[in-house]
Amino acid sequence: MFLALAMFDINDVREAQRRIAPYVHRTPVLQSKLLDELAGAQLFFKCENFQKAGAFKARGATNAVQLLSPEGLSRGVATHSSGNHGAALAWAASARDATAYIVVPNNAKQVKKDAISAYGAEIIECEPTLQARESRLQQTVKETGATFVPPYDDERVIAGQGTTALEMLDQVESLDAALVPVGGGGLLAGCLLGFYGSNVETYGVEPEGADDAYRSMASGKRIKAHSPETICDGLLTTLGECNFPIIRDRVADILLVSDQEVIQAMYLLWTRLKIAVEPSSAITLAGLLRHKELFAGKRVSLVLTGGNVDLKHLPFNQIT
Amino acid sequence: MFLALAMFDINDVREAQRRIAPYVHRTPVLQSKLLDELAGAQLFFKCENFQKAGAFKARGATNAVQLLSPEGLSRGVATHSSGNHGAALAWAASARDATAYIVVPNNAKQVKKDAISAYGAEIIECEPTLQARESRLQQTVKETGATFVPPYDDERVIAGQGTTALEMLDQVESLDAALVPVGGGGLLAGCLLGFYGSNVETYGVEPEGADDAYRSMASGKRIKAHSPETICDGLLTTLGECNFPIIRDRVADILLVSDQEVIQAMYLLWTRLKIAVEPSSAITLAGLLRHKELFAGKRVSLVLTGGNVDLKHLPFNQIT
Repeated sequence: MFLALAMFDINDVREAQRRIAPYVHRTPVLQSKLLDELAGAQLFFKCENFQKAGAFKARGATNAVQLLSPEGLSRGVATHSSGNHGAALAWAASARDATAYIVVPNNAKQVKKDAISAYGAEIIECEPTLQARESRLQQTVKETGATFVPPYDDERVIAGQGTTALEMLDQVESLDAALVPVGGGGLLAGCLLGFYGSNVETYGVEPEGADDAYRSMASGKRIKAHSPETICDGLLTTLGECNFPIIRDRVADILLVSDQEVIQAMYLLWTRLKIAVEPSSAITLAGLLRHKELFAGKRVSLVLTGGNVDLKHLPFNQIT
Repeated sequence: MFLALAMFDINDVREAQRRIAPYVHRTPVLQSKLLDELAGAQLFFKCENFQKAGAFKARGATNAVQLLSPEGLSRGVATHSSGNHGAALAWAASARDATAYIVVPNNAKQVKKDAISAYGAEIIECEPTLQARESRLQQTVKETGATFVPPYDDERVIAGQGTTALEMLDQVESLDAALVPVGGGGLLAGCLLGFYGSNVETYGVEPEGADDAYRSMASGKRIKAHSPETICDGLLTTLGECNFPIIRDRVADILLVSDQEVIQAMYLLWTRLKIAVEPSSAITLAGLLRHKELFAGKRVSLVLTGGNVDLKHLPFNQIT
């Protein structure tokens, strides 16, 4: 176990990059003069909302699928997910003509279920509790022989998500800092590995209503007690076991923001960049605007993690 | 007059391209496998929603501003506009430290007025009639000595908008056809000039509720009687005098679509491409989906003209 952890580093991220490059997008980096002025810094928005299946999750899912043997592929992959990871795994499996079994809580948003079925996956509904999700998944894996691909607590997945950092280093010269949303910590841990050897100060940003990473950093122990309440529906989970030590040892800090700040930031991104991003993406701009002093005059990359948003229920009537 | 018209051609568009290149974006072209499947054609979306000031109008406005003498620049520019042309001219003037006077009907959407003032222009409100707009503009020009830059009925403006076509030819190999929204006809006439010498069949797309270009083509005469009623608030005007003969002689056809088709197309663009576009932009995809037989198997460019949309009043609750 120690050996495996010790060997998990930037080289895994580099290998993941070679492995997934034929399948995923090298997403663009957008800039806005007006947002730069507002922030007092130079902002580079890494647009994973343009990624395959609409979110960065396609990176980790593809890395995991590509690592399967032909025999493993023939039995398919499985996961439980209320959102982007489910769609990403469905898409990654379909790219290799493999079957994906996605266990989805029966209260998941229709837009996310539609995305999953659009890629030809088999949706298995269950009660909206972690226990029901896990037992339904176990049962599915047993019945089908499919390989479980976890949403974040997994080295293959973390390495895949970390390719986002390698691209940012390549696309933005002299990058000083990066802001990355944190839920389970797959993207943040991956980016921290990917930024190894650079001078990029990397911050996680988390909703006040789902602040387990913040509390885990403060206490030095991974906090699992958690009753999340936030508009950021991609950031409801607690830090994974693999993810926590990487984040604890390398992150500059975890920044907290309110849902109201997220909605204001989302409105700014939609109106100034003309792109559709989820609340869980806009949180990076919200974090920067709340903590401007940390980034004054710097060149800062902000990961916009996804764009799978329910257009019939947008929060913009709350904008003042 | 005859001489001037006879000399207005693709060379003016090429000169405009050299003139505006340092100021405007070369906007990206996006693709979507799912939309290709839906259309039965290969679609290339030219994203002018990412253009400076959020719409293609920055091209024509910049060309007109760059053609001013230093003395003309010092007196500023003026126009009347309820929308994107006003913001574009305000932006183009600010890029040369010139003053822009924008006459705006007092019922214009706040989001469009905000865009105009964000670029430092002077907003002059008037009653929402064409007569009031024109007389208020005349008065402003008289008082300030500013140069009037019309929204579409102007060779400098048409040549600027036509640079969109030159970029599409450059960005998409073996382009077969293009769809361009038509209101006053600045963009459509410009693109028809820009496509000269290519094999690109160019279609204008117009709302059923503002179908003056369709009726003008049918009758061979420029129709001015018009009571527009459509969600496409960028396409309310009738064809300009300069614009009509170019369109009459060169366009493949004018396609009509309903507002409901526009809203469905807009929803598809937002959810599949993850971008914010106006109804007046989405009309090109609506036109293609209504007339699939014209484009089957072809390589088709669709101009998405702008992204300045009021996020608090989106039409997606009408989606079935």
